Amino acid sequence: MPAPPHAMAALMAPRSVAVIGASERADASSSFVMRNLLARGFAGPILPVHPRGGTVFGLPAARSIADLDRTPDVAVLAIAAQHVNGVLEEAGAAGIKAAVVLASGFAELDAAGRERQDELVAIARRHGMAVCGPNCLGLFNLHSGAALYSSTLSGTLAPGALALVSHSGASAIALSGTGRLGLSTVVSCGNGAASDLPDYLAFLAGDDQTRAIGLVMEALRDPSAFARAMEAVNTAGKPVIALRAGRSAAGQRATAAHTGALAGSAEAYASLFRRTGVIEVGDMDEFVETAALCIGLHRRPARGGVAVIGVSGGGVAHVADIAQENGLALPAFSPRTVATLTSVLPPFATPQNPLDTTGAVFADASVYTRVLEAVAADPAIGLIVAAQDAPPGLDEAGAGEYLGIAGAIADFAAGARMPTVLMSNLSAGHHRLFRERAGQGILVLNGTRAALKAIAHVMPRGEAPIPACTAREEPDPRWRAVLSSGKRLSEGEAKAFLAAHGLPVTRETLAASAREAAAAAGAIGYPVVMKIASPDLPHKTEAGGVRLAIADAGQAARAFEEIMRNARAYAPQAELHGVLVQETVSGGVEALVGLVRHEPFGLGVVVGIGGVMVELVADAAFELLPVDRDAALAMIGRTKLAPLLAGYRGAPACDVPALADAVAALSRLGETYGDHIAALDLNPVAVLPAGRGVRILDALIR
Amino acid sequence: MPAPPHAMAALMAPRSVAVIGASERADASSSFVMRNLLARGFAGPILPVHPRGGTVFGLPAARSIADLDRTPDVAVLAIAAQHVNGVLEEAGAAGIKAAVVLASGFAELDAAGRERQDELVAIARRHGMAVCGPNCLGLFNLHSGAALYSSTLSGTLAPGALALVSHSGASAIALSGTGRLGLSTVVSCGNGAASDLPDYLAFLAGDDQTRAIGLVMEALRDPSAFARAMEAVNTAGKPVIALRAGRSAAGQRATAAHTGALAGSAEAYASLFRRTGVIEVGDMDEFVETAALCIGLHRRPARGGVAVIGVSGGGVAHVADIAQENGLALPAFSPRTVATLTSVLPPFATPQNPLDTTGAVFADASVYTRVLEAVAADPAIGLIVAAQDAPPGLDEAGAGEYLGIAGAIADFAAGARMPTVLMSNLSAGHHRLFRERAGQGILVLNGTRAALKAIAHVMPRGEAPIPACTAREEPDPRWRAVLSSGKRLSEGEAKAFLAAHGLPVTRETLAASAREAAAAAGAIGYPVVMKIASPDLPHKTEAGGVRLAIADAGQAARAFEEIMRNARAYAPQAELHGVLVQETVSGGVEALVGLVRHEPFGLGVVVGIGGVMVELVADAAFELLPVDRDAALAMIGRTKLAPLLAGYRGAPACDVPALADAVAALSRLGETYGDHIAALDLNPVAVLPAGRGVRILDALIR
Repeated sequence: MPAPPHAMAALMAPRSVAVIGASERADASSSFVMRNLLARGFAGPILPVHPRGGTVFGLPAARSIADLDRTPDVAVLAIAAQHVNGVLEEAGAAGIKAAVVLASGFAELDAAGRERQDELVAIARRHGMAVCGPNCLGLFNLHSGAALYSSTLSGTLAPGALALVSHSGASAIALSGTGRLGLSTVVSCGNGAASDLPDYLAFLAGDDQTRAIGLVMEALRDPSAFARAMEAVNTAGKPVIALRAGRSAAGQRATAAHTGALAGSAEAYASLFRRTGVIEVGDMDEFVETAALCIGLHRRPARGGVAVIGVSGGGVAHVADIAQENGLALPAFSPRTVATLTSVLPPFATPQNPLDTTGAVFADASVYTRVLEAVAADPAIGLIVAAQDAPPGLDEAGAGEYLGIAGAIADFAAGARMPTVLMSNLSAGHHRLFRERAGQGILVLNGTRAALKAIAHVMPRGEAPIPACTAREEPDPRWRAVLSSGKRLSEGEAKAFLAAHGLPVTRETLAASAREAAAAAGAIGYPVVMKIASPDLPHKTEAGGVRLAIADAGQAARAFEEIMRNARAYAPQAELHGVLVQETVSGGVEALVGLVRHEPFGLGVVVGIGGVMVELVADAAFELLPVDRDAALAMIGRTKLAPLLAGYRGAPACDVPALADAVAALSRLGETYGDHIAALDLNPVAVLPAGRGVRILDALIR
Repeated sequence: MPAPPHAMAALMAPRSVAVIGASERADASSSFVMRNLLARGFAGPILPVHPRGGTVFGLPAARSIADLDRTPDVAVLAIAAQHVNGVLEEAGAAGIKAAVVLASGFAELDAAGRERQDELVAIARRHGMAVCGPNCLGLFNLHSGAALYSSTLSGTLAPGALALVSHSGASAIALSGTGRLGLSTVVSCGNGAASDLPDYLAFLAGDDQTRAIGLVMEALRDPSAFARAMEAVNTAGKPVIALRAGRSAAGQRATAAHTGALAGSAEAYASLFRRTGVIEVGDMDEFVETAALCIGLHRRPARGGVAVIGVSGGGVAHVADIAQENGLALPAFSPRTVATLTSVLPPFATPQNPLDTTGAVFADASVYTRVLEAVAADPAIGLIVAAQDAPPGLDEAGAGEYLGIAGAIADFAAGARMPTVLMSNLSAGHHRLFRERAGQGILVLNGTRAALKAIAHVMPRGEAPIPACTAREEPDPRWRAVLSSGKRLSEGEAKAFLAAHGLPVTRETLAASAREAAAAAGAIGYPVVMKIASPDLPHKTEAGGVRLAIADAGQAARAFEEIMRNARAYAPQAELHGVLVQETVSGGVEALVGLVRHEPFGLGVVVGIGGVMVELVADAAFELLPVDRDAALAMIGRTKLAPLLAGYRGAPACDVPALADAVAALSRLGETYGDHIAALDLNPVAVLPAGRGVRILDALIR
């Protein structure tokens, strides 16, 4: 149950603030809050509360919340953890709709802290309050000056369009103070106990001051709420950039110690982010460049091609190398572009992408302008990277000869229909004079790698977005009963379950006698495979329980007796249901399809190369449920199954649509029976030549 | 034939300089050189040469080289391309041992330029001269002030211990001017026509001013000369850091346009670098951080473990994430370290690696010192990363509370036996005040990703270095004749060749009749495999030329007739040698072993997972020749063969030593017959259970 919108508004854009525990003591968190509010020009009433009364920073202090002569939008609780819940209850009872709880000593500390945090959440729920924290620095709305913030504010904080919400206080401080990003609001949300990322996203979706959102997150508790909030953000057209701390095992140790929440798996996060359109970045530098680009770009580039321009062959080659490593396409220029460049550039220049304009542009910067114009007109290009700087450390005179180029780029970028990025190869950024000449209006990115990663995030993608939820079907009560019994299903039962839900299993019959086995084999058609049917023998081959290539009735009858004998000898206690007589499937490619559970995300689908080498090849795509046919096709396209199924080394092309149908059917099954399935492995699934479908050869349900 | 050492010394550390074409015209390259020499305090004579005579910047100019009253160590040719070779000949004839040729218009331009460059090289060879360039900016020895440099020198260039040699002038400018790296010499070597990287490396190995070497390289022409020069550098204990531009296809386009040399393949470079101990970096930021670390580290860390320390859980988790992505080990602290940390840190801190010291260190920076001491005493730790900064943009007062930590780190680092790196998460670097407080003596790295990559480069490695050349064997003249005939070898011939050189092929006999086939099969032992023997039928299966599981003499005789009939029908013109009768090899794991040629590196060995999915799995290790048994074992360990051979999914462990022996034997064979082999594929090679060896099942030699 999220906080009501008006409570989030009271928290994020308060018109009046009470500071509980207000003090002038220099190292008190309340004193930071009071001084920040006063220094940042918060226009609304600031209401200190302290049992001693008196004045705090010249403002009269009420002795308690009850004594306040008005109900503030938000109360900042600058008090010790053990007093927090009592005062929060008071505030809620007094009709205050939002609070910031700075104290640590909650779920991040120990079991008692966890209980204290649960109580805090219950109070917030009961009163419909939004609560930032606990274990946080608070928040700062840069447009209103509402600096409910318990640390020193950096002098480089400037109002702008990026909202930054961070579980980690230190990261909020570091990323907000770079001077590269204009900010609407900075939120250090700490444990995110009562109000967490989904609540902030939902508010920011409708916040006029915010055009892009940056998240520094440690763990997500409620992926569904996150996805719902992202729908609102996406409708508002605001990009969201996320940096996860604690992705690695070692990282998880550190954040678990810190916020008391464990991170889920990387693939589940990646799927949720793909599905909800979140841009995941890998480090702080990439965060800064991506945020700068998202704010600076007024529209997503219309075409996927990037042109790289510079004045050095080695320099643009370096950019091209890193572009390729990050999946950015540097398409060849069109003949028309080449012709124009040939006419513009000196004869020793080579008119290609990446483009070395040569030193000719130093003598005449208008050459650079004409190059930019020619490239912008190329039908494959959607964004131009001018990899251009003056060498660091040059004095005014030395840098002078580069400034014509800076001017040419700036003038072009100002008037261009095409997004144009001025990029420095070194992440320390541009030469001061070059930067100043290029001016404020231009998109500037620092450091080849982080900049190109940022650009890769905003280029148009080939892959269609994954659709939202499919309709959930009613489970079949009989099968639900079987699954919920906790009994392990035999291969035959598992396949019957799958077949009943539209999944293509091998044709097969359970035989209880040698005679039945021969009859079943005849009906299915020789050759057949025969396997022991027992829920207690998952490793049938080791039990001597499998016979292949049974060619006639006599072999079938003999195989029945042998298999039963072997199984009894191997595991006398095993429950034997008989022998499964199965069609032989030959040809095709072995795939693996499965359901895997990652809490708190629930089930997801896995598709990849199947067979015995699954773990070695380690080539599988993962998406959270639901996955429809198109999403399944996209998943297959991300794996090495794609070239294998396309007709590898002269083999016939395989039935990819049928595999996608099977994946979608498994997704529906996962949605329908999800509560009763821990994991489900179909391996191998034989993908037969085109038009002949797929067959599930083995199935294991846990 | 490299330049003699005294010629390289004359180039790199000249005591006197002639400037040919010396002029005061502001935009003339000679005027840059003259002004740089004068401004940088070059102590030796500066001798301008100009046909007009007179004075240049106050110095009397000779009318020609012949008119000089002394022989300078080096002549800077600041003249147009078409005059260069004539003047170079004059200089050589006059006994000048070194030259810098600035002009472009050589191999990078066109065919005529290529000819001009060839002539330049011939002149240099004839006179035993070292020549920097052509198509370059020249070089600058910062310790002597010999600024033979035709561009503006950055004010931030400071003398130090890093020598920088760059094919790309722009990259030399950008990397030398960052202010992060103290420099001994900067060389823009342009086309590297007469003197190239090996020559510079050989000189720098013995240069007392240089403790580390950075290369920005586009293509390597002579890998053997490079390897020889690296031996001298390694003996001198100087780390070499290399950034290659033009690694990608797009990047190669740009550099090819620029320097007229094509880059070899990434794997061949990687192998050469591994073999010669060169540190390859991926971008300019990583170059700067790695160079800074190499210069700052006085010894390689003694142990492989890294400890990460910070004052924020989210912050150290972020560092841990990126450490893991870059293969850095963050080992758990020892019980003793944990006990010490528990006693030093407040109770809510968690004494683990990565370590969040919590805010306790703000109140008492000595806690930070004690933490550093405890961690330095941990037996698994070889290097400490203090991921620590003051938030950017804080004013003097705000940053003040962080400076105690800066001081604690600086004091510890100054006295510590353990390398300690002060790292900022943002690549823009540390807060100015924090940086100043930490002082000059400390190792400072910027940006989590580049810094941790740099650290990964210097940590001790598990893998032993690959040994230098093995003795080259004399080729067998008969086999050399067969290989050099250009005729394609049949499978039988190829295997006979391999068997003659100690490689374990399947036992097999060529049968010319059905009776011979049956006799051969009986001798080898049933079941056997039978295959058509023909150099014209590489795809035997498609030709109906393969029969498996031949169980007795009757089947063998029939199979002979069938195979011959099928082959004749499939390719009536094919030369048929008969049918190969081969032992059946069952069990084991399929590997691929091969020789591949990458010019200019020559042959290398490939090892990886074999069978039909080779290209899909794309899992192979590559090393240039020679590879001995230990190197082969290391190669196998880098591939997915390793887990497969170790006994995958309950299978028996395979004969890895035998596979390594086969790889080493193939390497010897490649060295012996290399000139006659374009490529050699052994696929599959069956690696049998331990003690049972390997068998080459199929072989293809081109």
